[in-house]
Amino acid sequence: MKLLVQKDFDYNKVVLPDKELINSHLDKYLEIRYPQLIWESIRYSVLADGKRIRPLLMLESARICGGDIENVFPIACALEMLHAQSLIHDDLPCMDNDDYRRGKLTNHKVYGEAIAVLAGDALLSYAPKVIIKHTPDKVDKKVLLQVLEEFLKAAGPMGIVGGQVVDIESEEKEIDFATFNYILSHKTGELFKFAMRAGALLSGATEEKLEALSFYGKTIGYAFQIADDILDVTGTLETIGKTPGKDQNSKKNTHVSLYGLEESKKELEILCINAQQELIKKNINSPLLMAIAEQIVARVLK
Amino acid sequence: MKLLVQKDFDYNKVVLPDKELINSHLDKYLEIRYPQLIWESIRYSVLADGKRIRPLLMLESARICGGDIENVFPIACALEMLHAQSLIHDDLPCMDNDDYRRGKLTNHKVYGEAIAVLAGDALLSYAPKVIIKHTPDKVDKKVLLQVLEEFLKAAGPMGIVGGQVVDIESEEKEIDFATFNYILSHKTGELFKFAMRAGALLSGATEEKLEALSFYGKTIGYAFQIADDILDVTGTLETIGKTPGKDQNSKKNTHVSLYGLEESKKELEILCINAQQELIKKNINSPLLMAIAEQIVARVLK
Repeated sequence: MKLLVQKDFDYNKVVLPDKELINSHLDKYLEIRYPQLIWESIRYSVLADGKRIRPLLMLESARICGGDIENVFPIACALEMLHAQSLIHDDLPCMDNDDYRRGKLTNHKVYGEAIAVLAGDALLSYAPKVIIKHTPDKVDKKVLLQVLEEFLKAAGPMGIVGGQVVDIESEEKEIDFATFNYILSHKTGELFKFAMRAGALLSGATEEKLEALSFYGKTIGYAFQIADDILDVTGTLETIGKTPGKDQNSKKNTHVSLYGLEESKKELEILCINAQQELIKKNINSPLLMAIAEQIVARVLK
Repeated sequence: MKLLVQKDFDYNKVVLPDKELINSHLDKYLEIRYPQLIWESIRYSVLADGKRIRPLLMLESARICGGDIENVFPIACALEMLHAQSLIHDDLPCMDNDDYRRGKLTNHKVYGEAIAVLAGDALLSYAPKVIIKHTPDKVDKKVLLQVLEEFLKAAGPMGIVGGQVVDIESEEKEIDFATFNYILSHKTGELFKFAMRAGALLSGATEEKLEALSFYGKTIGYAFQIADDILDVTGTLETIGKTPGKDQNSKKNTHVSLYGLEESKKELEILCINAQQELIKKNINSPLLMAIAEQIVARVLK
């Protein structure tokens, strides 16, 4: 099986309108209020130039399932806020101690550690509040509560936080595949899976479609993290927007440190092929999802 | 008007059964899962000996309004988790840098800063998840979403986090009453008010009762914070469970630093009298709420 490449598909051009809609919704939800400092700090990180891959996946998932994307924006933006939160706290001196992120100084480098901690805390509560306040009234309350519960699960100790804790515990230790798998799926896989599930659930998807899109999301999330691990070795501050070589310096367990660069590249490609094949098998026609799987590989191999 | 003292009302004995119920629910919700370290760190702080004043107020508010207290436990415990979260992050070296809390070493002193940050993050997502997962199905979904939104508001940048930010910005500065009022109400007042509102909303309270109980909660919250400010000056590590004199050393604006010890004691008493009088005016018969108002004063003056 090979990775399928679509000719004449201009990824950046295709996603631009959705990216602009996501950014304008984020801008609206994060309008500056009193006390100004915390909103400025939040906006600094959330509105920084990013790929917006998680919300883009959610919008596409809703479209595939015939849903109204207006229903999805609050949750899509909440997911991006959650992602930014995890980056702000991950970058803190007591965690990964990073100076650069998305091509700019990290939040605590600009606003200080106390405000960076509080900006992350603020986002953790404000993101689910946006979901409740801004999701259109026509969305069934039971579905909304289900999506909200899955969101909170993905954010907390059974999600990102759990992955982060095991990651910290595993530093400078030899770990087995199950442990590495736990870190990878909880730090990245679950959020990508949630993006696909939320779009599908809000659009009344069939169980079969929901399963296929969940599989795609989880697989792409894995691939995305492996790509990140590879780029930490092969990238530069300019190409990846953060300091390269950090994983190795902090003796983190990454796919590359465990399996080597070549093996990681192979695994990355297999995952993206599997994600594409799942869509084909289940008759899900989405040039965008096909292209995203392809782009993750292209970003690393070029 | 004088503070009303009820003879033969043994506060500790009266609240003991509810306190035990709150603790057993917290224990159940926070059962240890993988990764064990984060749940241990969470349990260390949340299950530490505390007054449980916020959940106790919520249960009493529900009883007064004729509600079923079984409906209230998940939200009452979530509020206690939120309170513990704010303490864990407040105590961090980059914030107030405290070594003792509730008579024990602070979370980061035992588990390290990284895990303390993550324990707080975990609680911020897990607390609202407990509300969705454990609130009985018979509670109306619209009411549940309203209470959840108010909870998230009280936790975030329009609540505790906002108060904390202004508190940090105001250190070593002269501030006006409006600013001080903002800090006080957002750091403490809103959570006490929320405790009363949630109990009432889940129990189908009349608008008049809801308003009266909200007023009581907000006023008691204020009083509670002023009492804390006074005890920071007059208390000892043994009596207050944390290092005294911290506010003064960090040049925090407190009621005492702004108005002096005697004026603060007077204001504290007036607030508690007002809280009691509101109950009497609105024919709300609650020996417990009357006693709580009285206890806050007694704790400081004895």
